[in-house]
Amino acid sequence: MNNDGNASTPHIGGPTARTGVWFVGARGSVATTAVAGCAAVTAGLHPPTGMVTETPPFDGTGLPPLSSLVFGGHDTAHCPLPKRAEHLTDAGVLPHGLASAVHAELQAADQEIRTGGPLPGDTRGDEELITDFAADLVSFRRRNALARVVVVNVSSTEPLPAPDAVRLPPSSLYAAAALRAGCPYVNFTPSTGLRTPALTQAAAAGGLPHAGRDGKTGQTLLRAVLAPMFVQRALEVRAWSGTNLLGGGDGAALADPGAAAAKNAGKERVLADTLGHTPEGEVHIDDVPALGDWKTAWDHIAFEGFLGSRMILQTIWQGCDSALAAPLVLDLARLVARAHEAGLAGPLPELGFYFKDPDAGPSGLSEQFTALLAFADRLREAK
Amino acid sequence: MNNDGNASTPHIGGPTARTGVWFVGARGSVATTAVAGCAAVTAGLHPPTGMVTETPPFDGTGLPPLSSLVFGGHDTAHCPLPKRAEHLTDAGVLPHGLASAVHAELQAADQEIRTGGPLPGDTRGDEELITDFAADLVSFRRRNALARVVVVNVSSTEPLPAPDAVRLPPSSLYAAAALRAGCPYVNFTPSTGLRTPALTQAAAAGGLPHAGRDGKTGQTLLRAVLAPMFVQRALEVRAWSGTNLLGGGDGAALADPGAAAAKNAGKERVLADTLGHTPEGEVHIDDVPALGDWKTAWDHIAFEGFLGSRMILQTIWQGCDSALAAPLVLDLARLVARAHEAGLAGPLPELGFYFKDPDAGPSGLSEQFTALLAFADRLREAK
Amino acid sequence: MNNDGNASTPHIGGPTARTGVWFVGARGSVATTAVAGCAAVTAGLHPPTGMVTETPPFDGTGLPPLSSLVFGGHDTAHCPLPKRAEHLTDAGVLPHGLASAVHAELQAADQEIRTGGPLPGDTRGDEELITDFAADLVSFRRRNALARVVVVNVSSTEPLPAPDAVRLPPSSLYAAAALRAGCPYVNFTPSTGLRTPALTQAAAAGGLPHAGRDGKTGQTLLRAVLAPMFVQRALEVRAWSGTNLLGGGDGAALADPGAAAAKNAGKERVLADTLGHTPEGEVHIDDVPALGDWKTAWDHIAFEGFLGSRMILQTIWQGCDSALAAPLVLDLARLVARAHEAGLAGPLPELGFYFKDPDAGPSGLSEQFTALLAFADRLREAK
Amino acid sequence: MNNDGNASTPHIGGPTARTGVWFVGARGSVATTAVAGCAAVTAGLHPPTGMVTETPPFDGTGLPPLSSLVFGGHDTAHCPLPKRAEHLTDAGVLPHGLASAVHAELQAADQEIRTGGPLPGDTRGDEELITDFAADLVSFRRRNALARVVVVNVSSTEPLPAPDAVRLPPSSLYAAAALRAGCPYVNFTPSTGLRTPALTQAAAAGGLPHAGRDGKTGQTLLRAVLAPMFVQRALEVRAWSGTNLLGGGDGAALADPGAAAAKNAGKERVLADTLGHTPEGEVHIDDVPALGDWKTAWDHIAFEGFLGSRMILQTIWQGCDSALAAPLVLDLARLVARAHEAGLAGPLPELGFYFKDPDAGPSGLSEQFTALLAFADRLREAK
Repeated sequence: MNNDGNASTPHIGGPTARTGVWFVGARGSVATTAVAGCAAVTAGLHPPTGMVTETPPFDGTGLPPLSSLVFGGHDTAHCPLPKRAEHLTDAGVLPHGLASAVHAELQAADQEIRTGGPLPGDTRGDEELITDFAADLVSFRRRNALARVVVVNVSSTEPLPAPDAVRLPPSSLYAAAALRAGCPYVNFTPSTGLRTPALTQAAAAGGLPHAGRDGKTGQTLLRAVLAPMFVQRALEVRAWSGTNLLGGGDGAALADPGAAAAKNAGKERVLADTLGHTPEGEVHIDDVPALGDWKTAWDHIAFEGFLGSRMILQTIWQGCDSALAAPLVLDLARLVARAHEAGLAGPLPELGFYFKDPDAGPSGLSEQFTALLAFADRLREAK
Repeated sequence: MNNDGNASTPHIGGPTARTGVWFVGARGSVATTAVAGCAAVTAGLHPPTGMVTETPPFDGTGLPPLSSLVFGGHDTAHCPLPKRAEHLTDAGVLPHGLASAVHAELQAADQEIRTGGPLPGDTRGDEELITDFAADLVSFRRRNALARVVVVNVSSTEPLPAPDAVRLPPSSLYAAAALRAGCPYVNFTPSTGLRTPALTQAAAAGGLPHAGRDGKTGQTLLRAVLAPMFVQRALEVRAWSGTNLLGGGDGAALADPGAAAAKNAGKERVLADTLGHTPEGEVHIDDVPALGDWKTAWDHIAFEGFLGSRMILQTIWQGCDSALAAPLVLDLARLVARAHEAGLAGPLPELGFYFKDPDAGPSGLSEQFTALLAFADRLREAK
Repeated sequence: MNNDGNASTPHIGGPTARTGVWFVGARGSVATTAVAGCAAVTAGLHPPTGMVTETPPFDGTGLPPLSSLVFGGHDTAHCPLPKRAEHLTDAGVLPHGLASAVHAELQAADQEIRTGGPLPGDTRGDEELITDFAADLVSFRRRNALARVVVVNVSSTEPLPAPDAVRLPPSSLYAAAALRAGCPYVNFTPSTGLRTPALTQAAAAGGLPHAGRDGKTGQTLLRAVLAPMFVQRALEVRAWSGTNLLGGGDGAALADPGAAAAKNAGKERVLADTLGHTPEGEVHIDDVPALGDWKTAWDHIAFEGFLGSRMILQTIWQGCDSALAAPLVLDLARLVARAHEAGLAGPLPELGFYFKDPDAGPSGLSEQFTALLAFADRLREAK
Repeated sequence: MNNDGNASTPHIGGPTARTGVWFVGARGSVATTAVAGCAAVTAGLHPPTGMVTETPPFDGTGLPPLSSLVFGGHDTAHCPLPKRAEHLTDAGVLPHGLASAVHAELQAADQEIRTGGPLPGDTRGDEELITDFAADLVSFRRRNALARVVVVNVSSTEPLPAPDAVRLPPSSLYAAAALRAGCPYVNFTPSTGLRTPALTQAAAAGGLPHAGRDGKTGQTLLRAVLAPMFVQRALEVRAWSGTNLLGGGDGAALADPGAAAAKNAGKERVLADTLGHTPEGEVHIDDVPALGDWKTAWDHIAFEGFLGSRMILQTIWQGCDSALAAPLVLDLARLVARAHEAGLAGPLPELGFYFKDPDAGPSGLSEQFTALLAFADRLREAK
């Protein structure tokens, strides 16, 4: 348990305790949508569509209420959150009128955003950056009298680190800072985060719950329900090909072949784990700025049935990635916060439902959902 | 247990026992594909792709081997099975060369096909037809010294019976004959079969296992995996629309609005059961003879995510219905035969995995698969 | 030429002459979008995307400038145009901010909308209704000192009239009123309009240009370019199936089987005219309110190539019907107004580019475009 | 005119004259399908579906009859044509029974196939290879007493040649040989062929007709009809993305990034030429062996309409490339042979209808078809 509270701060951990959510990438589309959406749902402006933790199976599990969440984060960009929310409104991600309705909450979160790093020309070494980031976390927790702070990485996908890299990738610096500050950690991106030998020992010793990697929001979500169908029906998948078109920041980031490779590794893992082999076919991620924050994913699955008959399934998914990710990010922050409160530590494979590349556990969505419900029961029974 | 064996027939029920599979609609595409395919897999010409009962979870469950199945059936058509198999080869359903490779088995099954009914101008009443059909079943069992005969309805979809109909629909006449002859029964079509008050008592008293209704081969199979995904992710399905294009006999039969209504009831049940409400949208079934036995199903799902964002999933399924249905029909015949041997009676909701409109049980495919695996365990433990 | 001007009105027909556009269905989505869009383009708020008459081939053809158009119309609904524009903004048809930016123009058009008919319980006969409607047209022209008024039907699709109907369908009453008032007429809907024997003689005698029928905005537009491709490449179209999903007023209107039949007749004409035969396949129009004013059209084309090879083309069109129709409606009003000024009379088959069911001329879009360009040349040369 | 005939050969150029078609890539799928298909159509086994030159507009144009065509060619592979035809039958490209029905014609063509080059380890220089290839052409013409021989490149796509390459690419060696032997030339592939400065002068001096480049069979065919639609309707194409999945030899060849680059250049040219700008979006070509000779092409077009409304068109093309290409190749051989007979020389831009990257002329399919029909008229009037 954290112990940085003191007599001058409000009571921490009691029924009025508040929980911090610290976004790495706090000025990005996902974080902005999460902050605005949390405020909108709390205010009753919108139903909590897309938030699994607001469905009946999670009643009585002791999750921190949405109204108790306090937002902050790191980012290297400078656009204020209220302005970002306006941009997202123009892009059709946020409904008209929402940005002004929750302006105060966006403003409050904006005040809690600190400059991340390393910045271009930054002379700080890894250790110094970790120390600085951890200090930001501790300060946020103390100033806001928070019971705990969950760090959630929602920044742009990093390129795969070179095998001989001397420095830690930024996502790992932030993850290390979370460990040092005693914060549970969630990696919603395909970036490295805690998945580096350099952090294995610290993660094990930290006694903190953590979850990852790479949120499952669109094409891979579909793959996680369709691949088991073929297996269960004893149909032979010959080839599974996919193309993703997306604009927005993610499209540009993933136009980098290194970042795309990181992203695709997760996508392919679902198929390999479920089918027991890697079928033919490639996955493309194209940057199409004209699509803005909306993503189109086309999948083409060639499979073989009885007596060698050749059949085809195609799927076309048109979704808004930020709107898909934001409620899941809120879910994860709440679940991991509650896990921390309940004294759980280490990876949480029960949260595989949310990830393309989970720490462990089944690969089919349905089994993952069953595991998540069991986790809810476990939380309900925890003190 | 049946007791029509006698000293002059081979030992029944022992390790060399043979099992009868009696198709209502024995000259149709599904039955022909099942007979030809069973022979082909038995002969090692093809792997058992699409047969769930040939996967590892069914090892040791005591299912009758494919080589022990003996085929017969009713039909009102007259085209010999070897010729039907040639037609199916030209239509791309059966691979070239198969019809001649399994000619003997097709010929043998053809010898066991009896004329069904009622034929146009038939003066027999319901009772007389049931008696005649049951006699065909008993004769088939006795002549072939079969341990048991499973009756499987794979005939064309009937129109929904009028509420004030005086006669039973044909599918119910065959189902009644199965009960009378002591045969387990499977209804792979949306037709009435046992689902009529007139047969409720007889079904309950018969002590026979039965399963239905309406095989889940394409669009509804997909719906049974996709609908749970939306529920699990707390996404709100607004509209689910579908169009099916198919030629072949099924296309023509379903061009009849009554038959289409029967078919669509099953399709819609999956959504209503899973989503908890019936979304907007219609289902069309078009007869497109140019497509032959190949079916194309387009689904368009409009759903709502976080903060009211509007998203779309579309699926296009291009499959061969006969090739999808035949291995499931073989699965069902074996499972229900084994259930009969194990002394099970009444509806088998554990087989909901196979049906659009099952007797009971969960509506999501994954839960249905779990139930099927549990059923396999139960069979394994039965004597 | 009209001659209802008088000394007290401004000079008519000169360089400052204004042209009236009278919408039947003036409070509908298409009319509202046209009025708002004309104002927005005139004000430089948006480029004239989708308006063919604003492209270089139409330079110097003497079309009335957008700024010279004056809008009015008939409707039986009462929702004020500014309010309708807000609804269309919420529905994503109009961009945010536009309704308020062009509020004055919407208000002005709203003032010129008169109650149409026949209303429920209306005791007026056909002749009386025609007289009343014509009086509205003449009054609009005189009060606004308009050089001419083009009547454009953009109201909801009527059911096909019964063969023994005693009364004229409403669309024909409005068309007759246009003739009587000396107004050129455009029928952008599949409704009857001038296409009834009852109006043939009056249309011929009126000396007025007219054009129709049924604007080609989505699925049929595609068909008009794809069908010629198959013909030109000597590929054999076996089946052409289509499903349209749409909400909004049009979806509800077309859920009426009679209205759908009227609509589909036009769609099928394109294929029959181009292919020389009617392929297999049906067209469905489903009302899906969740889609609002956005339409999705799926087409599935089964065709045969060399040596009987079977191939498939599928298209999915996701468009906003009002946004597609409105610029075409403005095009047509301008072109027909200019034709009137140039003294042209009778049907204008050169405008087949715009219609599913044109008066005459080629059925392929490219040939229709060539004819339209020739028409532009003709207008350029006219006085 | 060629003048290598002599008194001992049959009369050349008269009504019984025969025309040679020499395939570069004579053992490939396209050439095999063309040879088998020409024989099948000649024998009345199949209608000439897909052959534009067999439609009424080409009556009386003096094209060499299909029955007069004599096939030969170069290839570096060794599989005999009758065996290749069997493979194509198994792959579903040729109908069952055809290969045996036209065995004699396949055998005859096989006898006229000569080894191409350069082979691995080949020590011949460019000049020697050209000389050898030309000798093969002259020998073929003389031995078969052919009026003329059209050389048609249907071999696998070459990688784009390096800018500093010392040798000519193979496609250019064959093209040079055609010039030297006095043979008209068609390049149905994206390879260099005559499009190299090294051959410009020879091509101009040769007095031979030639046509190219890169046959337009699927995705680009569609683009050539869809892109003009957007232009004609003044709709703004923002992004045009495409993915092609194909197995067979072409899939493997195009998995080479250099070859794919060559292929994509043609695809993009259609859009740039028609739209007047290059929209956002990429084109992918994936090798998916499970699809065999069947190709699936998905296109996603994001376009903007009136008042900035965002709309989407998607197309899915599932075709058999060999079956699409073969009739066009026969068309081209006949048209270019007739052009040669009529004394035409140089590039034939009127054949742009057939090519992705034509020598000149319009880029829309409809205008190209009009040009082709005018060319037919010209041939009809030629002696």
